[in-house]
Amino acid sequence: MRYALLMQVDRSAVYGAIEAGGTKFVCAVADGNGKIHEQQRFSTTDPSATLAATCEFLRASSGRIGRLTAIGVGSFGPVYLRKESNQYGCIGKTPKPGWRGADIVGVLAREFACPIGFDTDVNAAALAEHRWGAARDVDNMVYVTVGTGIGGGVLTAGAPIHGLMHPEIGHIYPRRHPRDAGFAGVCPFHGDCLEGLASGPAIVARSGAELHLLDPGHVQWEIEADYLGQLCAQLVLTVSPQRIVLGGGVMSQQRLLAPVRQRLLHWLGGYVDRPEILDAVERYVVAPGLEPQSGILGALLLAMEASMRFNAK
Amino acid sequence: MRYALLMQVDRSAVYGAIEAGGTKFVCAVADGNGKIHEQQRFSTTDPSATLAATCEFLRASSGRIGRLTAIGVGSFGPVYLRKESNQYGCIGKTPKPGWRGADIVGVLAREFACPIGFDTDVNAAALAEHRWGAARDVDNMVYVTVGTGIGGGVLTAGAPIHGLMHPEIGHIYPRRHPRDAGFAGVCPFHGDCLEGLASGPAIVARSGAELHLLDPGHVQWEIEADYLGQLCAQLVLTVSPQRIVLGGGVMSQQRLLAPVRQRLLHWLGGYVDRPEILDAVERYVVAPGLEPQSGILGALLLAMEASMRFNAK
Repeated sequence: MRYALLMQVDRSAVYGAIEAGGTKFVCAVADGNGKIHEQQRFSTTDPSATLAATCEFLRASSGRIGRLTAIGVGSFGPVYLRKESNQYGCIGKTPKPGWRGADIVGVLAREFACPIGFDTDVNAAALAEHRWGAARDVDNMVYVTVGTGIGGGVLTAGAPIHGLMHPEIGHIYPRRHPRDAGFAGVCPFHGDCLEGLASGPAIVARSGAELHLLDPGHVQWEIEADYLGQLCAQLVLTVSPQRIVLGGGVMSQQRLLAPVRQRLLHWLGGYVDRPEILDAVERYVVAPGLEPQSGILGALLLAMEASMRFNAK
Repeated sequence: MRYALLMQVDRSAVYGAIEAGGTKFVCAVADGNGKIHEQQRFSTTDPSATLAATCEFLRASSGRIGRLTAIGVGSFGPVYLRKESNQYGCIGKTPKPGWRGADIVGVLAREFACPIGFDTDVNAAALAEHRWGAARDVDNMVYVTVGTGIGGGVLTAGAPIHGLMHPEIGHIYPRRHPRDAGFAGVCPFHGDCLEGLASGPAIVARSGAELHLLDPGHVQWEIEADYLGQLCAQLVLTVSPQRIVLGGGVMSQQRLLAPVRQRLLHWLGGYVDRPEILDAVERYVVAPGLEPQSGILGALLLAMEASMRFNAK
């Protein structure tokens, strides 16, 4: 359904795309073939300055390239996604100073007279990997980013899960690794949830070094792979994806993929009897196909979809 | 989409419905309003005898009530749900003797010249609770049964999740309760996964008694509620349901609902900032509205849907 909609999109139209991250914003003007014509990135400061810079780039770039047919935003979260909510398009309970309640869609709607698509940054990246990247052949998949935080976008039947809010898979509780018993974890909400134990800041807090500076034999690799393998197992058991795409700064240490796959198999214990996992786990848990562009291309897809939904009304 | 299909169903037609459980089969002949005209239950023995009894009931009952427009089956699992698989409609890797590979849909298709809908028992029950029961006002929900085993059906945007297989939420790993450290768990695959720690047989193995025979102050209640609260938290964080319906024999001990809700709030740690959970958890985690008929009514819905899909071709 969602996919069919996108098939009819005007590929030559011009779209705005915003990857609204907690650390940096990436803005682009692109076409419906996934070609980015202009792109800019800047640090995320306070909401008004950051959104003003976003609008300024989009105005200037569309002046050069063409009028925007629609804008898509993939945002850090938590965010409000239910259109019937009066907080739709706003940031939720984030620890990031100043951003709680920031009305991203509202600001853009006041500036630009066009449809605006809005979703989480990870749902957007999942859409991009599904459409153009490492999950083009499946309709049920998860995109996970492991970096400053841990988050995931989940597609079922080709569409992102929203529901009450949206998945927040970074905050599940893995079982503690026996060689990691003393570490309290760094999540401000939960301490030793997955993000508290396996995000980049957790690795630094535990070892004093980033993962890429650690010796290949360091126990941190074993701990990290075990926690991420538990995440993958939980995902298999709850949302039954046909593929899991693992991205983000921590995962860019390619040597992590193989041990994560092994720990996934360990935690499943032979229960999920599917050759896609048991015989081909290296095609089941994979690196992104589009990184570092998954997020901005996902925002482009949200713009294209918003345009199609608007035209379908 | 799925829901819209059902709106057009022929309510006066006659449907067959089968709740294919690992312990008992329930078979019914019903109409599209959810009215069951005849129902029979019998023990699950070997596949050929059990399916023969099923066919015999459906033939005899439809002879009295009317020709079957379609049949729906909600089955114990794991099952093959992808229509492109040559094992579609079969039982997967079950420990139940004789049932691995049993071709439920194939047997019914050879006996009855009508469309056949097929899904897991818990996805069927989720559909029934969504259509007629405790989750009529939401489109994203989970139905969990806690009994001999633990399983769950997950609806996103009104449709069950399939994906690679189907959710198997009973086999996630909760963190061990500090007062339950010595118990190995009873799951033949995983030992101390959720089913291994919190199913009916786990309670009996740990305490020597069924939950309903235990004193209200017994530590088993605390342990059980904690594990089920962890399950609910994991579900919130991975599939973001708007409601969680907890059914099954263990949950029929109504005093469990309140402590499970409290443990859900504990494990979320204030992170999911939605009034539906924080201010109204008693309407968020609820008992089924249809029990013990959720499963058979879900099978009826699968029959209705199969009929509509067939007609739409």
